[in-house]
Amino acid sequence: MHFASDNSGPVSPQIMEALARVNQGYAMAYGTDPEMEAATAKIREIFEAPEAVVYLVATGTAANVLALSTLTQPWQTVFCAGPAHINMDECNAPEFFMGGAKLTLATRADKMTPADLRATIEGEETRGVHGPQRGPVSLTQVTEFGTIYSGPELAELCDVAKAYGLPVHMDGARFTNALVSLGCTPAEMTWKVGVDAVSFGGTKNGCMGVEAVVFFDPDHAQEFEYRRKRGAQLFSKHRYLSAQMLAYLSDDLWLENARAANAKATLLADGLRAAGAEFSHPTQANMIFAALPRARHKALFAAGAAYHLWDGGLEGPDEEPVTARFVCDWSLPETDIQAFLSLL
Amino acid sequence: MHFASDNSGPVSPQIMEALARVNQGYAMAYGTDPEMEAATAKIREIFEAPEAVVYLVATGTAANVLALSTLTQPWQTVFCAGPAHINMDECNAPEFFMGGAKLTLATRADKMTPADLRATIEGEETRGVHGPQRGPVSLTQVTEFGTIYSGPELAELCDVAKAYGLPVHMDGARFTNALVSLGCTPAEMTWKVGVDAVSFGGTKNGCMGVEAVVFFDPDHAQEFEYRRKRGAQLFSKHRYLSAQMLAYLSDDLWLENARAANAKATLLADGLRAAGAEFSHPTQANMIFAALPRARHKALFAAGAAYHLWDGGLEGPDEEPVTARFVCDWSLPETDIQAFLSLL
Amino acid sequence: MHFASDNSGPVSPQIMEALARVNQGYAMAYGTDPEMEAATAKIREIFEAPEAVVYLVATGTAANVLALSTLTQPWQTVFCAGPAHINMDECNAPEFFMGGAKLTLATRADKMTPADLRATIEGEETRGVHGPQRGPVSLTQVTEFGTIYSGPELAELCDVAKAYGLPVHMDGARFTNALVSLGCTPAEMTWKVGVDAVSFGGTKNGCMGVEAVVFFDPDHAQEFEYRRKRGAQLFSKHRYLSAQMLAYLSDDLWLENARAANAKATLLADGLRAAGAEFSHPTQANMIFAALPRARHKALFAAGAAYHLWDGGLEGPDEEPVTARFVCDWSLPETDIQAFLSLL
Amino acid sequence: MHFASDNSGPVSPQIMEALARVNQGYAMAYGTDPEMEAATAKIREIFEAPEAVVYLVATGTAANVLALSTLTQPWQTVFCAGPAHINMDECNAPEFFMGGAKLTLATRADKMTPADLRATIEGEETRGVHGPQRGPVSLTQVTEFGTIYSGPELAELCDVAKAYGLPVHMDGARFTNALVSLGCTPAEMTWKVGVDAVSFGGTKNGCMGVEAVVFFDPDHAQEFEYRRKRGAQLFSKHRYLSAQMLAYLSDDLWLENARAANAKATLLADGLRAAGAEFSHPTQANMIFAALPRARHKALFAAGAAYHLWDGGLEGPDEEPVTARFVCDWSLPETDIQAFLSLL
Repeated sequence: MHFASDNSGPVSPQIMEALARVNQGYAMAYGTDPEMEAATAKIREIFEAPEAVVYLVATGTAANVLALSTLTQPWQTVFCAGPAHINMDECNAPEFFMGGAKLTLATRADKMTPADLRATIEGEETRGVHGPQRGPVSLTQVTEFGTIYSGPELAELCDVAKAYGLPVHMDGARFTNALVSLGCTPAEMTWKVGVDAVSFGGTKNGCMGVEAVVFFDPDHAQEFEYRRKRGAQLFSKHRYLSAQMLAYLSDDLWLENARAANAKATLLADGLRAAGAEFSHPTQANMIFAALPRARHKALFAAGAAYHLWDGGLEGPDEEPVTARFVCDWSLPETDIQAFLSLL
Repeated sequence: MHFASDNSGPVSPQIMEALARVNQGYAMAYGTDPEMEAATAKIREIFEAPEAVVYLVATGTAANVLALSTLTQPWQTVFCAGPAHINMDECNAPEFFMGGAKLTLATRADKMTPADLRATIEGEETRGVHGPQRGPVSLTQVTEFGTIYSGPELAELCDVAKAYGLPVHMDGARFTNALVSLGCTPAEMTWKVGVDAVSFGGTKNGCMGVEAVVFFDPDHAQEFEYRRKRGAQLFSKHRYLSAQMLAYLSDDLWLENARAANAKATLLADGLRAAGAEFSHPTQANMIFAALPRARHKALFAAGAAYHLWDGGLEGPDEEPVTARFVCDWSLPETDIQAFLSLL
Repeated sequence: MHFASDNSGPVSPQIMEALARVNQGYAMAYGTDPEMEAATAKIREIFEAPEAVVYLVATGTAANVLALSTLTQPWQTVFCAGPAHINMDECNAPEFFMGGAKLTLATRADKMTPADLRATIEGEETRGVHGPQRGPVSLTQVTEFGTIYSGPELAELCDVAKAYGLPVHMDGARFTNALVSLGCTPAEMTWKVGVDAVSFGGTKNGCMGVEAVVFFDPDHAQEFEYRRKRGAQLFSKHRYLSAQMLAYLSDDLWLENARAANAKATLLADGLRAAGAEFSHPTQANMIFAALPRARHKALFAAGAAYHLWDGGLEGPDEEPVTARFVCDWSLPETDIQAFLSLL
Repeated sequence: MHFASDNSGPVSPQIMEALARVNQGYAMAYGTDPEMEAATAKIREIFEAPEAVVYLVATGTAANVLALSTLTQPWQTVFCAGPAHINMDECNAPEFFMGGAKLTLATRADKMTPADLRATIEGEETRGVHGPQRGPVSLTQVTEFGTIYSGPELAELCDVAKAYGLPVHMDGARFTNALVSLGCTPAEMTWKVGVDAVSFGGTKNGCMGVEAVVFFDPDHAQEFEYRRKRGAQLFSKHRYLSAQMLAYLSDDLWLENARAANAKATLLADGLRAAGAEFSHPTQANMIFAALPRARHKALFAAGAAYHLWDGGLEGPDEEPVTARFVCDWSLPETDIQAFLSLL
């Protein structure tokens, strides 16, 4: 009954096999391995972007901060939502890698609206050289609260950014969970609506530790390569990153894992709803934010369930509702969900 | 006949097995997995340092720059040799992670002498706040030219550093190759002579991508943890780093791999010497720097040998000697060496 | 009729005289001049802080960012109000000098309340190493909207900071305007209530370009000196900074200039109020934020008045109210105020 | 008898008068004052560069590091001589402002030769993304040892830089001393031979604290303005910088001051030579490096002379020669030189 995070699950067997397969003899280092060539081709294919440049790094934070620093000048500010990973969960890595650029919060909610974004951009510029200059917009898809920007929402936000000449970055740590939920193509969720760069996550969806950074404009290639090396993210035994990504994208593994995770979340959410839980956010991918009375959390923890309380602790009145975050990964046994729901 | 680098070889089977073994169900993220606890215990044991703090990162550059940035203030300078990886091969990552601290070269040779170090330290300080302030000494063991500081040499260098109150960092990307060559203990090669922090390499000696940073003074722990996260090197699925390191240190795998690599280099060096090669540096670990006439390089490359020319290219007089770098990893088939030598 | 800013006024004659007086023969460079010794003594005396360390720099931004970077680790966040100069008007200099530390806004208003501060601090810490760590609190006195924290308000805010072990910085670009308005002593407005470091402004109150950074804890001295030099703010011909500060603090010039500026603002505010202006903030020092119908702004500008419109421009309905900022400096001729008011 | 530094002398009376003259009423802040317009025009005129962009800052370190950071990417290295101010005397400010870019020393001598430069540039690039990338060349004119690059020497060095596509920066803290010594025009010493950006010093030659940064390519303008503000070097009461620079360039004051300083150094050098001093560097501007027996230094100090010993202290055998640095500024009374020489 492990619903704590999709970053604590195991690696898909297909990816373990790919690692074993690639573990033969010598291979060129630093990304010149044949698996990387194949992985790049695969990503260009699924994104319908034959010119795109593709790089692999090992953590989601690395993908975000290296992508953003390539798009941002140190005197600029990045527009994002308050709960964004880059704002809340990267211990100032964005500011560090961007040379002191800052983040400006367009909203405190999970999703920014076009109006939020426009007002915030407008607010950042009447001061000449004195204020931070306008920089990229960064959108998180799936958001940190498990919600998803629809295609039209993305298009509208990108239109606002473009109206000010600003590039758009997508933090896609859970990119595929959003993709299968929307039922659109990677191109439709990115460059077709105006996204310029994507942190395309693998780790949370069955990989061991690999994320791709994709730029649709190949002019960013050279700078990114310097930034990746200087950021200590250029792997010598790179074939083990490439092989993960290649296996992940083969035989629809990425899609199947995401579909499995989302379906499990739906099952769990339905059960929670039936049990009277109050949802603070709709469940659109593989994360659930729902409140139960404190007493029920106590009972569930006692029975071995693992998840995070979000807006309170175990101290307090038994009947008071406390919101919890439940995350389902691809590997979660359905029997665990059933066991959990029967506890409820 | 692959002598290009020890970072292009495969992963030891024992490590692959450990990765498969650990790939079961859920595990706590970010270094709180039980394998990390065991790996820490193991490193403390082999270093005879029960108080040491131990962290895992995924690249050698990350280990070096996170360790050094923890020991260095931005207005200081790090004393190192010119060929040091931190100076030549990290694309300014040290300066970046250290917030603009600089490197001062104590020598252009592979190894600095105590006299070099003392003179260089003395040279960096008669200017009050105007000049860079004296910072750590960083020693590379094995050096980038395949040579090794002896125990007494290390002790003398550390004594110089200590006389000025400066901490000592060891870049041990090939730590174990030096260790088995010297036949000493990890403690004797580090804290017993005065080393404060070690980048303890795994990747070049049979791991997939893992390096430990070891501080003998646990006071560095908290700061390092912030720096690792902010440096985008904190892995969510950390168990796969831990399992590598744990398997690497189990059943003497680390020692056996290093002994194998060194022995192969000795065999190759003996053959090269017999064939009339001129050595620019003694072969003390698993790297060889030796010159052959250009024509012989051409013939060897044509026959499929892979290695790097160091001080010249394939253009020029056939009889002119050109130095090459040959690196042997643990996995190198002895038949390859014999095939190579018979070509000679 | 110049009400645009107190940074566009002239230098007090006493300070010009001091510059002329000190312009004799040779003087030791870099802050070892006798005038600096006297200026330090004077600042310690007026702050009743014999241990304080005192440094001079040439811009308010430099004072703020060098002071804050001395108090802040790069993985921390500084708590401030949204309109703070460090947030709005320093083009990311704080983030740059702090090595990528960030700012967290405790309020969007001019003044933060203890409740704002507590809630914001609480919000920044339940995430271990993942989130930004809590850093200093920075208070602006006079605020950017011309309002003032009372002594008890300062004490309460500092108490909140201290409860979390956080240091407190005061951006005192208009320190003396606040001081004479409150009628308290420098000690009462700073260390006696819990402020640890002050940017003590001179430029806006009659100096040519000098600000002092004062730390009440002398342990910050050495680090600050390195930071000042590395920040390109150590002046060789330092006597010309020292002489400004010394003259500024002599014969109550600092107090008289601030009293004059505040009195002029009161006179102007009274006139504006009488003329029906709506005040968005109380006028507590030398800045006024008041709205007039657009048509009146047009007429005033046409008649030669200089000031900034704050929340709108000259386009729009004539009768619509538009807030303007009026700033009075010590040198403003009362006849200008009268001329302006008679235009109204 | 003050020969310690040209940064400890007074301000020229013409500049003090200009400061007094400009101290009337209100002036637009931040460089939009009319004196700045006139100063820019004057600099364009003397450099015969009508497109040049010109900025004022208050310290030589600020001019250097803001100019260099505009020309340099963080993953590049700047080629300079070992004794350069940016290497020895700026406490890592260049590395800090350049975001971690480094310096590579083309020589340990005062002046680099074209061969030095070419060999050093060649040495910095055979490593793809691994090594630092080649960045600007920075030349110091007058060097830190009082010597001067001739016009043809500058041209040859710039040609080497251009052959690699690298920009050239000139640290001209003593620009005018070099200019009058060479007897050439500012254009001939800069853009006509290939210099792209100049730190044009005022402070050491009679100003209070002002340096111009001149870019011959106006494309650098916008970035520099952001960097200056973010670097805490944008002055609100900017007219007092402008007025200094304008007076400095008016009525040949800059040239006369430099000629006076150089002439005094020649007089002093002649006397030292006559007294048997050994010169380690030729005296080509206003600095002298000459050795005298230790006993004579003792006697001179005892008699009140002020200057710096360069390669030794007062401890040691009386007859041992110790090199001293003597610097003459424009204001040095000739009677002081005569008094000093008669002591010799």
